[in-house]
Formats: sequence, C-alpha cells, structure tokens
Amino acid sequence: MWVFTEEEIRDAVALNVATVDGVEKGFSALVEGRVRMPPILRVDIPEHRGEVDVKTAVVEGEPFFAVKMSSGFFDNPKRGLASGSGLMVLLDVETGLPEAILLDNGLLTDLRTAAAGAVAARHLARDQMTTAGVIGAGSQARYQIRSLALVRRFDRILVWSRNKQRAEACAQELAAEIGVPAEVAPDTETVVKRSDVVITSTPATRPLIQKEWLHEGLHLTAMGSDAEHKQEIEGAAIAAVDRFVCDSRQQSLRLGELRAAVAEGWIDERESITELGEITASCTPGRRSEEEITLCDLTGTGVQDTVIAVMAYRRLREQGKGTRI
Amino acid sequence: MWVFTEEEIRDAVALNVATVDGVEKGFSALVEGRVRMPPILRVDIPEHRGEVDVKTAVVEGEPFFAVKMSSGFFDNPKRGLASGSGLMVLLDVETGLPEAILLDNGLLTDLRTAAAGAVAARHLARDQMTTAGVIGAGSQARYQIRSLALVRRFDRILVWSRNKQRAEACAQELAAEIGVPAEVAPDTETVVKRSDVVITSTPATRPLIQKEWLHEGLHLTAMGSDAEHKQEIEGAAIAAVDRFVCDSRQQSLRLGELRAAVAEGWIDERESITELGEITASCTPGRRSEEEITLCDLTGTGVQDTVIAVMAYRRLREQGKGTRI
Repeated sequence: MWVFTEEEIRDAVALNVATVDGVEKGFSALVEGRVRMPPILRVDIPEHRGEVDVKTAVVEGEPFFAVKMSSGFFDNPKRGLASGSGLMVLLDVETGLPEAILLDNGLLTDLRTAAAGAVAARHLARDQMTTAGVIGAGSQARYQIRSLALVRRFDRILVWSRNKQRAEACAQELAAEIGVPAEVAPDTETVVKRSDVVITSTPATRPLIQKEWLHEGLHLTAMGSDAEHKQEIEGAAIAAVDRFVCDSRQQSLRLGELRAAVAEGWIDERESITELGEITASCTPGRRSEEEITLCDLTGTGVQDTVIAVMAYRRLREQGKGTRI
Repeated sequence: MWVFTEEEIRDAVALNVATVDGVEKGFSALVEGRVRMPPILRVDIPEHRGEVDVKTAVVEGEPFFAVKMSSGFFDNPKRGLASGSGLMVLLDVETGLPEAILLDNGLLTDLRTAAAGAVAARHLARDQMTTAGVIGAGSQARYQIRSLALVRRFDRILVWSRNKQRAEACAQELAAEIGVPAEVAPDTETVVKRSDVVITSTPATRPLIQKEWLHEGLHLTAMGSDAEHKQEIEGAAIAAVDRFVCDSRQQSLRLGELRAAVAEGWIDERESITELGEITASCTPGRRSEEEITLCDLTGTGVQDTVIAVMAYRRLREQGKGTRI
C-alpha cells in the first residue's frame, strides 16, 4: 500500500481545467447510472463543535474508489488548528484491498469542491460577466473564485465575511492572484445586488441571502450547507429562482438548501429537481437565457472524491512519490 | 500521525479476557446513551461479489474514535487473496485530526467480533456445558471458538462447513489449539442437536438452522448476517427461542437475523427487543434458567471498533511501535 503526504499531494494536483473536466464527467456518470453512491455516514460531536462525514462512490470504469473522511471541528482555530481535516483511502474495485492512503488534510476535498463550483458556473453563469461575489472568506471561498476564473472572465471581485479582517485578507489575496480588483462589501445584500455570480461558502445556519436581492442574470452557487442544521439561502429565494439545480437531489433534500425550503413549504419535494449531472450529460440545457436566475446547491458528493482521488493517485505514482508500507 | 502495520498490530493485541471486557463495556455504554453511532455506510460491488462497510462510533470518555472500513470480496480466494480486508483510522475526538492508521487487514475486526461472541456466551450460555458447535470454518469460526474458551469450559468441538476439507482443517487446528477433541459433523442439524453452544459464522443467504432442532438450554450466537441479503437462522427459529438478544436493534432489523424474521411476519418489529448492552449493563438479566433457549444476533457495531482500536493504539504506543508520517 502507498501512503502520500499532503505536501506530495499539493505538488502533484492542481486546480485546473483538467480537474474541472474530471469532476464534470463524474457528475454525468452519476445521472447516467454509472455510479454507486450510498448515503453519507455522518457523526456529530457537539461538545467540541465537531462533525465527521464519510463519503464514497464506485464509478464505473475507475479501477479504484475512494472512501473519504472529512472533519470540521469549529473550536480548532482557538487552538491554532485548521477547523477542517481529512484523508482519503483508495480501494481496489475488484478486490477491496486498500491501494493508497492520501493524507491530504482536506486539500483534495477543497479541490473537488472548487471544481464542482466551476462546473456549475460553466453551465449556469452568463457567458459575459463583470463581477464575481463571494460570501465567506475561508479557504474554500478562495478556491471558488480561483475555479470560477478557470471558466469565466470577470473584472471585479466582491468579498463579504462576518469577520471583516478575514474578508480584507481574502480580497487582497484574490486580487493579487487573479489580477483583478477585489474589495470588501459592507453586507451580503451588496454582494448579491452587484454581482453576476455569487458563491456562498460559509457554515451559516441562518439564511444570508434574501429573495428581494435576486436580479436578472444572476447565478448563485450555494456550497456551504452540507448538514441538517445549515442554510445559506432563504426558502423564498430558492422558490423564486428560475432554475434550481443541485449536485445530488437526495443530499440536497437531507443536508442542503432544499431541506429548509421543503420544510418551510417553499418547495414540494415531489417536484422534479434537476441535478447538475443532467446538465453536464446534456439531458437538459444549462442557462437558457441572459435573464434567467440560476442557483446550484452543492452538498459535495462521493463521486467527486473518487474522481479526484484517482486523478491524484495516478499523478503521484507517475511522479514517483509516496511511501510504500 | 502514526501508521501501524498488521504485523505490529498482531504482536500487540491478543484475544484475551481484557479484550472481551473492553468490548463488553462498549456494549454497556451503547445502551447507557454514552455512544454516538450513526448507521453503517455500505457500498456493494456485485460484479466482483464485493461489499465495503464503514462503521464508526464516538464513545464517551475515549479520547479517540475509529472510522473502520472493512471489505468482503468473495471472488478474492480465486486470486489467492483473502476475501476480507480493511483498516481503521483513529480520529481525535476533540479536534477531528487523524491520530493513527491501523493497517490491520481486518484483524481487529476479527478480534472485536470474537470478543462480542464471548460477551454473549458469558451472559447467555449455560455455566456448565459439554459441546461447542461452530457452523462455518473460516477465520472467524476459529476466533469464535477461541473466544468461547475464554469464558466457558467445554469438552468437545463440532464443526460443519459446506466445504468438508475446510471443516476438517478447522477441526484439526481447533483441537490442537484448545486441547479438546474436535470433529466434523455431517450436517448443521447434528451440530445444533449435539451442542450446548452453537456459533454460526457463514455468509449464508438462506437459513442453516431450523426451529425443530432447537433444544433446552441451547445458546446460539448468529454472527454471519450483516447485510440485507444474508440469513443464517430461519424466522420460525428466531420466534421460537426464549430470549432473542442482539448487539444493535437497528442493525439487526436492517442487516441481521431480525430482517427476514420481521419480513416473514415471525417477529413484530414494534416488540421490545433486548440489546446485549442491556444485559451487560445489568438492566436486564442474562440467562434465567438452565432450560432457556437463547440466541444472540451479532451484526458488528462501530462501538466495538472504537474500543478495540483505542486498546490497540495504546498498546502499540507503549511498545514503541509504528511509523510516524
């Protein structure tokens, strides 16, 4: 068995168009019935504000599949530790034997989540856009803007975070990295109203975005909510958009933005709900007009984990990295 | 983070009374509400006759908890590989950070499963017994007889397996190891009728044990069924025993012997069903008479995994084992 460290993985895998394409193919496979993906295993440790998710998916044609554990322990920053952590185990699809352990500390989750945001924007954002907004100023907020830049050009970045200092730091970093001006917005309303694409990337448990702020041509990617107690978009806004799309219907209903929207009666869960894979597999179109308001809810799927883990493993072996145990 | 190999783990952890006691405490904690244990994550790969389970449990007072993946790929023996495999990841309960990876290839699962069998026999088998029967001749069949010998004395072992050669090999090994005569029985009926304690340890999908063969004082431990398609005991026999006990009500109803018994109408799932932990925690008695027929259905719980993984990790560190990565 092979063991790879975060440093080795960081050198080997990048957020680029190939990664986005790989994740996009995974979404297509999911709706085409070429993926077996059981419900997420989840354990909460409220006394330490902690949660651990385990995800997996077997993707037809891939020789390995990932079992990924990712944790979020929100008191960690007080101890000087990152709140998120995790690792992936790659198993052989023919024998079940462990092939590799990717000690990525959540890096691959960051990359495949960012890639999913790019897939959503590629199909749902206007071709021509000016302003990219991001709500949240953590590591994934940065990744989402980086990945958006892979599929769309934009001239300005707006950042909002509950913590203004973190928002400033995030804006500065992104401006330098993407090469366009980035500024901190005073509130989420400003971000939504002034942006063509808005990504929410927070652990919010109460809505940050209201229906009244939606405007023609807006595309929203809501990637924060991935648990029963989280919500970033108010139910009225979910009901008001022209296109609601999610990575996984089942997960969005349980853990994502559909949960509250259904509970509050804004959405009927028997309604047909489009999955991102239906768009990437060309079963249904993406954005259909300049005016449409689109929203993609991302909860994070095991298929993304398997896709990125297999890509990373191939690259790592090609580069001669890793420790054999 | 620490990584431990199967060899290191094999040297450090043994099936002994301390292991049985540790697992017994875990069962008590489970019914006392001191454990958080989410439903098992499971993925099937029928084209390779494979299945992977992921289990976890957070046990109050333990500084770490295990996320355990175990696989069974039943075409592996044709390739000269063991059908079962697996590993455990130990996470810090306060930070979620991975503390250790135990590359045990299923050894710790074997030990904690055997220990659960001993816990069941300790509380449910007659104090005085003569014959121990085992149905199945794999690695866990051997472990079950070894663990029974930790809590009960017996003078004879009966083994049955679909494969007579494997049964012979198992009987020979056990006779030498336990120091009592062991012989191969011609059928499961003989094993049940002539034994005081019978353990079933097979991947059977059709019942191996019939109601008519049950007799006064018999204790059965059914540990094979841990999936929706498996069954070792016919529903009529489940309904006929005086005491039905299981490790986890929820799991036995979904994956264990209760599944078919309920589906066939032998058991009403609203009935009160005793969990092993209720007996170990002294909420309810174990065997109440010499005559009672008792049955314990073991599906395997995450709490056992956390208990054995923490025990193993402590021992391994004390012994200075492991590789730091």
